Amino acid sequence: MDNIITLAHGSGGSATLDLIENVFRKYFKNDILSAGDDSARLDIGNAKNIVFTTDSFVVTPVFFKGGNIGKLAVCGTVNDLATSGAIPMYLSCGFIIEEGFSMEELEKIVEAMSVTAAECGVQIVTGDTKVVQKGAADKIFINTSGIGILPEGINISGRNAKAGDRIIVSGTIGDHGSCILLERENMGFQAEIKSDCAPLAGLVRALLEGGVEVHVLRDPTRGGVATTLNEIAAQSNVTIQINEESLPVKREVQGVCELLGMDPLYMANEGKLLIFVPGKQADMALKILRENRYGENASIIGEVMEGREPKVVLRALSGGLRIMKLLTGDQLPRIC
Amino acid sequence: MDNIITLAHGSGGSATLDLIENVFRKYFKNDILSAGDDSARLDIGNAKNIVFTTDSFVVTPVFFKGGNIGKLAVCGTVNDLATSGAIPMYLSCGFIIEEGFSMEELEKIVEAMSVTAAECGVQIVTGDTKVVQKGAADKIFINTSGIGILPEGINISGRNAKAGDRIIVSGTIGDHGSCILLERENMGFQAEIKSDCAPLAGLVRALLEGGVEVHVLRDPTRGGVATTLNEIAAQSNVTIQINEESLPVKREVQGVCELLGMDPLYMANEGKLLIFVPGKQADMALKILRENRYGENASIIGEVMEGREPKVVLRALSGGLRIMKLLTGDQLPRIC
Repeated sequence: MDNIITLAHGSGGSATLDLIENVFRKYFKNDILSAGDDSARLDIGNAKNIVFTTDSFVVTPVFFKGGNIGKLAVCGTVNDLATSGAIPMYLSCGFIIEEGFSMEELEKIVEAMSVTAAECGVQIVTGDTKVVQKGAADKIFINTSGIGILPEGINISGRNAKAGDRIIVSGTIGDHGSCILLERENMGFQAEIKSDCAPLAGLVRALLEGGVEVHVLRDPTRGGVATTLNEIAAQSNVTIQINEESLPVKREVQGVCELLGMDPLYMANEGKLLIFVPGKQADMALKILRENRYGENASIIGEVMEGREPKVVLRALSGGLRIMKLLTGDQLPRIC
Repeated sequence: MDNIITLAHGSGGSATLDLIENVFRKYFKNDILSAGDDSARLDIGNAKNIVFTTDSFVVTPVFFKGGNIGKLAVCGTVNDLATSGAIPMYLSCGFIIEEGFSMEELEKIVEAMSVTAAECGVQIVTGDTKVVQKGAADKIFINTSGIGILPEGINISGRNAKAGDRIIVSGTIGDHGSCILLERENMGFQAEIKSDCAPLAGLVRALLEGGVEVHVLRDPTRGGVATTLNEIAAQSNVTIQINEESLPVKREVQGVCELLGMDPLYMANEGKLLIFVPGKQADMALKILRENRYGENASIIGEVMEGREPKVVLRALSGGLRIMKLLTGDQLPRIC
């Protein structure tokens, strides 16, 4: 194991998984944590199936096209609850603010949190603020933790992928990562790429209330679609194949990625779902998604194959097959 | 309102309350948040009386006599749950780590979290890790959010102080603040002051199961006993009087405070309770506290007076009366 923490440990890729395995799981041993999903399922008193999750946000810049750290902090945690199938209900928020940060910007961030929370019907019920000296933090960091309730009969998990499942992505991929990259680097060319940052609880409800039998639901954030699919392949012990020609990628995103030698499959998304459904339900799911504001560009991008080798294979435009690994290293730090 | 964030906004004193009132409450309006206690009471599905709280920890130094940021992060949130009368059950943890932080130190911190969580019977069930570049954070920040369950019939709140209540503190005051101060400044003298950092869930249970009718329960962290009592005086609209001669203060803490012109009443504690009980129950409560490891030095320090003027009055050793206000400014940044 490395003897210092590197940016790669925060990438969401293989170094993050190593850190979780070698440090956090070593000490925080319990069955709930071990399930390995983005949120924990709890029994509390009479309530079975309460869902609990946490996320810290350190994105830079704090304001970007399509959102800011406040909107992102609400979407991120709401989406982690929603992808368990739960109805998000309550959020906490913890601010760590650098001395000298603008009160006006703080107010814009808090307002964005409030608007986004209202859009998805969650209440921000408890909070905390710490201020650190100039130079001891970079502007503002926000933690949100969330509680939701899982309606009866829902069993969605990264462990449920089955041979024959179709894999749907709810829209274009790589928008958030490309947006942050462009905001951060002055690259001397014009591209209007907005972050896809959006709360997906409504989209999930539409699928579930529409009667779709969802096996797996994840939001491919840090590490992108390729990394999230690898995690699912490992959890379910299955081979996943995706088709390059089916991947919805905006022309501008494709352009930026080609220029910089990056792959949209590894770029972060903050308003997209990966959905695994039985083959026979794929068209129904697609129809429901496309009727929804955040699902207009939904596409079937691949399927779960027969065989128990946990890997992700890309069928390239050229026809060849390529193994897509977990993100290694750190493609872009502080993406969320 | 100020146009930038200052360290005082993170002090837990009057500037923090202004920020909460003028920014957070302005946008995050709901009845649960408005109650103004350290934790939120929620109804989720069939479960009534779930308690939820959050806290971020930015203490410097990360390791100090009597604990480290990990132990503190578990104690802080467990104590916020316990002081509502709830039984702490589950914690989340969100790490923000500076690139280059030592893996060995991280492991010590995580181990302390695990040991402390086990001591009070809580499980750490979900987590998140972000890494930021060298210089973008100061070593490590930890957020913990916690869920507990409130047994039936318990109604403890800062709004419940009543004339005639005796006020008990569960041990010596100012230990944590003085410890951090000494650790941080090289002041050229020797004093062995340990932080009092401790999980208080067991102490609270002993009181409640012992049949004590607790009206108010708070842990006087940032801003110290004087600030916490002011918050309670305002919430309950009562006058509180404390007696200087009854305050348990360690000789070393008194010495450090005198030397630096500081007041133990405004120094942070991380393992102490302020307990308001009906006068006739004070001795019973004291007996229970003193039988407990974390309550050996419990003392009655004052009482709630007749009259509805929200203020805190200190009867000084000299016999005179002095108004004790909320902490203003920032006595010591990054105390927790």
